[in-house]
Amino acid sequence: MRSFSSLLLAGLLAASATTTAAQATAKADSVVIRKIYDEALLRGQSYDNLRYLCQKIGGRLAGSPQAALAVQWGKLTMEKANCFDKVYLQECMVPHWVRGAKEKGQIIGNKGKSITAAVCALGGSVATPGSKPLRAGVVEVKSLAELKALPDDAVRGKFIFFNRPFDDRLIEPGAAYGAAGDQRRSGPAEAGRRGAVGALVRSLTAARDNNPHTGATNYGDTPTKVPGAALSTQAADQLSQLLAADPKLQFELEMSCQQLPDEKSYNVVGEIKGSKYPDQVITVGGHLDSWDLAQGAHDDGTGVVQSIEALRLLKAAGLRPERTVRAVLFMNEENGTRGGEKYAELAKQNHETHLAAIESDGGGFTPRGFNVETTPAVFQKVAAWKPLLAPYLAGQLTPGHAGTDIEPLAASVKPVALFGYDCDSQRYFDLHHSVLDTFEQVNRRELELGGASMASLIYLLGKYGL
Amino acid sequence: MRSFSSLLLAGLLAASATTTAAQATAKADSVVIRKIYDEALLRGQSYDNLRYLCQKIGGRLAGSPQAALAVQWGKLTMEKANCFDKVYLQECMVPHWVRGAKEKGQIIGNKGKSITAAVCALGGSVATPGSKPLRAGVVEVKSLAELKALPDDAVRGKFIFFNRPFDDRLIEPGAAYGAAGDQRRSGPAEAGRRGAVGALVRSLTAARDNNPHTGATNYGDTPTKVPGAALSTQAADQLSQLLAADPKLQFELEMSCQQLPDEKSYNVVGEIKGSKYPDQVITVGGHLDSWDLAQGAHDDGTGVVQSIEALRLLKAAGLRPERTVRAVLFMNEENGTRGGEKYAELAKQNHETHLAAIESDGGGFTPRGFNVETTPAVFQKVAAWKPLLAPYLAGQLTPGHAGTDIEPLAASVKPVALFGYDCDSQRYFDLHHSVLDTFEQVNRRELELGGASMASLIYLLGKYGL
Repeated sequence: MRSFSSLLLAGLLAASATTTAAQATAKADSVVIRKIYDEALLRGQSYDNLRYLCQKIGGRLAGSPQAALAVQWGKLTMEKANCFDKVYLQECMVPHWVRGAKEKGQIIGNKGKSITAAVCALGGSVATPGSKPLRAGVVEVKSLAELKALPDDAVRGKFIFFNRPFDDRLIEPGAAYGAAGDQRRSGPAEAGRRGAVGALVRSLTAARDNNPHTGATNYGDTPTKVPGAALSTQAADQLSQLLAADPKLQFELEMSCQQLPDEKSYNVVGEIKGSKYPDQVITVGGHLDSWDLAQGAHDDGTGVVQSIEALRLLKAAGLRPERTVRAVLFMNEENGTRGGEKYAELAKQNHETHLAAIESDGGGFTPRGFNVETTPAVFQKVAAWKPLLAPYLAGQLTPGHAGTDIEPLAASVKPVALFGYDCDSQRYFDLHHSVLDTFEQVNRRELELGGASMASLIYLLGKYGL
Repeated sequence: MRSFSSLLLAGLLAASATTTAAQATAKADSVVIRKIYDEALLRGQSYDNLRYLCQKIGGRLAGSPQAALAVQWGKLTMEKANCFDKVYLQECMVPHWVRGAKEKGQIIGNKGKSITAAVCALGGSVATPGSKPLRAGVVEVKSLAELKALPDDAVRGKFIFFNRPFDDRLIEPGAAYGAAGDQRRSGPAEAGRRGAVGALVRSLTAARDNNPHTGATNYGDTPTKVPGAALSTQAADQLSQLLAADPKLQFELEMSCQQLPDEKSYNVVGEIKGSKYPDQVITVGGHLDSWDLAQGAHDDGTGVVQSIEALRLLKAAGLRPERTVRAVLFMNEENGTRGGEKYAELAKQNHETHLAAIESDGGGFTPRGFNVETTPAVFQKVAAWKPLLAPYLAGQLTPGHAGTDIEPLAASVKPVALFGYDCDSQRYFDLHHSVLDTFEQVNRRELELGGASMASLIYLLGKYGL
């Protein structure tokens, strides 16, 4: 019989051997991850790819000719990246909404004096009816509930002006966006339901400037669809002030946007077959479509180029993932999520096993880490990778929403974990869905660091599973 | 005699009482800090103050009329902030270097064909001699050591072209700046010492564009001062490529910069007397001077407005610090640190006790936390505040360099700790010392968050000491 102290010693030695092996593994992983970052920072291709997508193709709303071009570009760019075993398209039908040539807003004072108000149609909005501008009085509310509480005759025939601003006290502007977003999404539907002629919605941004921010509005099953427009925050403030002084002022809106028949479009998929577990799939993606007002740089050109780049980085670092990895450029995130749904549907149809999905759709700013949707036990496992990512500013692993395009996967093939690339968020909603979302707003290093952090996560997922 | 278990119980109760008291204190502190941030995010004045400083005064190199205007502006802005017990100036003599009207660089090929190269004089450089451009051959080196190893006849009569780029692999661009900086600081002096006619220095930036970045060069005791110019990174790459093809090409440089006699200038100081320990001073500051090429927005208008704002936020949150707090707008950080030296000299002369000094001079980007220079024991104490700052993105407390303007204090009155405000660093050197450093590059929320994190640190220092 061994003595207690010899047992203790044996235990200590075993523990120390384990520690040493773990340390060696961590060291080996850190060498691999360093290689990935070196490639990204010295020879990264995200920035040049993004320049092309933004400046040569530009805004690419689902169903538009630009979106069709972007599909071709995505396929070619993947093929040129020379790291995929196969590159293919997944067909899906997408909504096709066009802005039209007319888009004008004016505040009309009681002496008929007009002031231009910067507006843009909300995505999916109907046009103003007839051939003349739509003119009506304005009722300002701060919430859907406030509209609900108004008597019918206060609402009928008016524009409902939803003017609840971002709550600037929230440290994450994404939380402020979430809290103000119902005005844009449901404001026009609710206004129509109550007999108003239209909805004017304060732009969903903390910026104080004259750029209106578009974004999807949903009529749902509203029988009466009335036009919905976003006002720049400056125009909203001005309208609010003028209304306070003159509650009888009128607003004149003219928009010629329209919903056309659905169009055929595609997700673009590039796949590297896993060397050891080819049946376990890891997906990484961003959305290829964007709003039409600008170049869709941070939303979501950056996610698109980072997703392609993540796999190129693995190859360039001499790695062949043990699990199958797919870069997916999703179509139609902005106004339908048809691409995300199609990807999830096909995954289920093909009885695929999905280990994890990663989405980058919060801009291409300096990394912070990843939001993770999974069980507490798996989260523990993922959290152990933090020391490997922290030296690259990407060590913040937080339970939280991963992304809109990979959400349908959770319902169909149930990946073990979903990851949302998380980066500095202060500037994102200043640009989001507005003319400002251009290539110039993206910083090369910030962008390339993001692609490398996604590649590093894929490397760890591919090696260790979940 | 009390039993062991009753002793244990008493001990546990005492520990739990302590924990509860500590929790209550932490809770009270978190309420105060929340108040500071609410004020900053809802009614912050940093952004508007910065707009004025950048757009109405602009670049303000020490000794310039703009620097004199900035002193007046600083004093007025502090007085209007209505939170200081006194606002005063500290006189100091500063170097006065002017760029002059002529600044031109050309690459001259062997057939006399010339290509314009974007250049700017390095701060402190002498002009090119005579009334004609200075033309000479070019020798490219990657380091001062490489120049040292060259034989005299390879150097004499030539331009020495220092072309070591930023090491892009470094995650912190500040580290790359540090590693490449000797070329700018000492390149012209070393070139002159070896008989070269001038020095061309690759701009200290990771950006790949056509904007030269200026910055101080020091001749030290070099007997022969030769002109030193920065080349944009694009111009440097082009010159290097052309040199490889044609080692005999020439460069033509014309600069009319000059060093004028020292000028009288000032630090601007605003002070709130401590309610309980008026003799213990906490300093918070940024530098009021900037380079002349742009508006000195991130370098260091942001630090200036944040330092004033930090104290306004304390007042607005209803706080009177127990220690004396001073906001200091230092003069001449860029090319002499005379203001920082004067502040330290006067502190010593007046036998002041300095608890801590905080500097913001790394741009006005999204907060990360603070670099701390202190003893391990004090660092421990400071690190305990991390949970109070982390919800505001400012919880990263790291041993590291605090700042150039407060460095002289360490030698004179030895504060217990120095703090450098630390924020996202990826974009800083893209703008630094170039025409791009303008107000438009600053984001309102990022800036205001910084002032609030400085105010929160001052609150904790003022309440708990060190």
